[in-house]
Amino acid sequence: MDSMKKGWFSELNDLWPGVSLSLEVKEILHTETSRFQNIMVVDTKSHGRALILDGIIQCTQNDEFSYQEMISFLPLCCHPNPRKVLIVGGGDGGVAREVVKHPSVEQVELVEIDEAVISASKRHLPDMAVGFANPKLTVSIEDGFKFMSRRTGEFDVIITDSSDPVGPAVSLFERKYFELMRDALSPGGIVCSQGGTPWANLSSVAETMKICQQVFPVAAFGYTSVPTYPTGQIGFIMGSINKATEFNEPVRVFSEDELDNMKLRYYSPEVHRAAFALPRFAKKALYG
Amino acid sequence: MDSMKKGWFSELNDLWPGVSLSLEVKEILHTETSRFQNIMVVDTKSHGRALILDGIIQCTQNDEFSYQEMISFLPLCCHPNPRKVLIVGGGDGGVAREVVKHPSVEQVELVEIDEAVISASKRHLPDMAVGFANPKLTVSIEDGFKFMSRRTGEFDVIITDSSDPVGPAVSLFERKYFELMRDALSPGGIVCSQGGTPWANLSSVAETMKICQQVFPVAAFGYTSVPTYPTGQIGFIMGSINKATEFNEPVRVFSEDELDNMKLRYYSPEVHRAAFALPRFAKKALYG
Repeated sequence: MDSMKKGWFSELNDLWPGVSLSLEVKEILHTETSRFQNIMVVDTKSHGRALILDGIIQCTQNDEFSYQEMISFLPLCCHPNPRKVLIVGGGDGGVAREVVKHPSVEQVELVEIDEAVISASKRHLPDMAVGFANPKLTVSIEDGFKFMSRRTGEFDVIITDSSDPVGPAVSLFERKYFELMRDALSPGGIVCSQGGTPWANLSSVAETMKICQQVFPVAAFGYTSVPTYPTGQIGFIMGSINKATEFNEPVRVFSEDELDNMKLRYYSPEVHRAAFALPRFAKKALYG
Repeated sequence: MDSMKKGWFSELNDLWPGVSLSLEVKEILHTETSRFQNIMVVDTKSHGRALILDGIIQCTQNDEFSYQEMISFLPLCCHPNPRKVLIVGGGDGGVAREVVKHPSVEQVELVEIDEAVISASKRHLPDMAVGFANPKLTVSIEDGFKFMSRRTGEFDVIITDSSDPVGPAVSLFERKYFELMRDALSPGGIVCSQGGTPWANLSSVAETMKICQQVFPVAAFGYTSVPTYPTGQIGFIMGSINKATEFNEPVRVFSEDELDNMKLRYYSPEVHRAAFALPRFAKKALYG
């Protein structure tokens, strides 16, 4: 099976062998090899534009809202007053777009290792790159791991919107990174990291979850549905240094009107609560 | 893109244009064209054996448990005492395997239009076809629609485990079918039908949901994650003739020990409750 043939892009990766999602492509809008990875933006027949890094679909216009809303609002709504937020990765701008919607948020820093992803997004993915236009946001081009090691006691929420644990994001799944995040949090702070899917990579998800459980007094695994991700879903590994945090019960409960005003299409308090109800096989593997 | 090439099976269908899931195939175990459809069983590299009808994946050994458990236990656990159950479709035997686990269930009828599916399953999918060996089960080979029109006031739960609304299953999404199901229920009875996914077919899902809402005093849409189905999930359209039914709160709450004894790997009371928490875009479309 080839990754680009007869007008279809096929996602092939050793992280999920033997299975592949393909999208019919109308036009290849962008392709380059940056210092860190291969970057491609394509216009698909059915899913709008798609950002593809090293052959793995990062987001499509049609379903990205689920991921961006959930990785942002799950941690934000578990914090009583998230004023200062750090986004690690998130070079497409979609998470920044969501985070600034939360009324408590005053200041957002985003650290992306690969400036070329931001440029490609600004040029080809305006629905997501709109996040970069917000005055609350400051962008640094740097390795997230290194950035984190210089900052302490600062952030109310840290969101790691990374690619998978191959290529430039490997260090963001290590114990040391979780320790650095813990130390970079302000009192009561919360972290939320892209955490893979129990359906495809249960043992590596469980390994990262174990690290989070050992580094933070409270940890949880939530997930959301994203049709164009492998297995159709993606999980979030979350930790809090506030022992009283109950991840499955938001402390900030938005009304329907507030959700409408923020143009949220996926997240709601009931969706928040449901995100932590894991299938038995996953619950046993992740919570023991 | 071809549906079988270089050792990969690709699912291509007009119900979800522009996107295709492919599975690497080790061996084609069975292929025939019955009176109703094309039937194929393949052994895949990563997902065990897969049953494919008219080019659409019906189930794979690795993730079928989610679908079979949820389409069975969601309606069964909303009924206080489900003794007599009807399964429409379900020719692989997986739903029967799950339904008979429920301790209240005394008698199960299964009506499958295509005997060749049952034969192929018995020959190649023993993990699912084991459902046919249970003495509580009676099998009829007949069109489910016709079968239903002869039966009234009999069943506590009716589960429609059909293929998608193309081919032999079209009539199982019509208003008349929902009316026939309603009339075939005993007092307080509940129906649960395979209902597609809001991500791929929102308008047709909403249409079937509207029929269910008009035919039954209480209706709800739940869903579960199935990685090898289009969009990685599948929904269930449920109706009850008992006005007091609250689908998101099981009336039969099994303990962890009971769930273990029934070998349930997906379903739990908390997963049950979460299955009805719909993303905002879907909730608005299905409940208005």
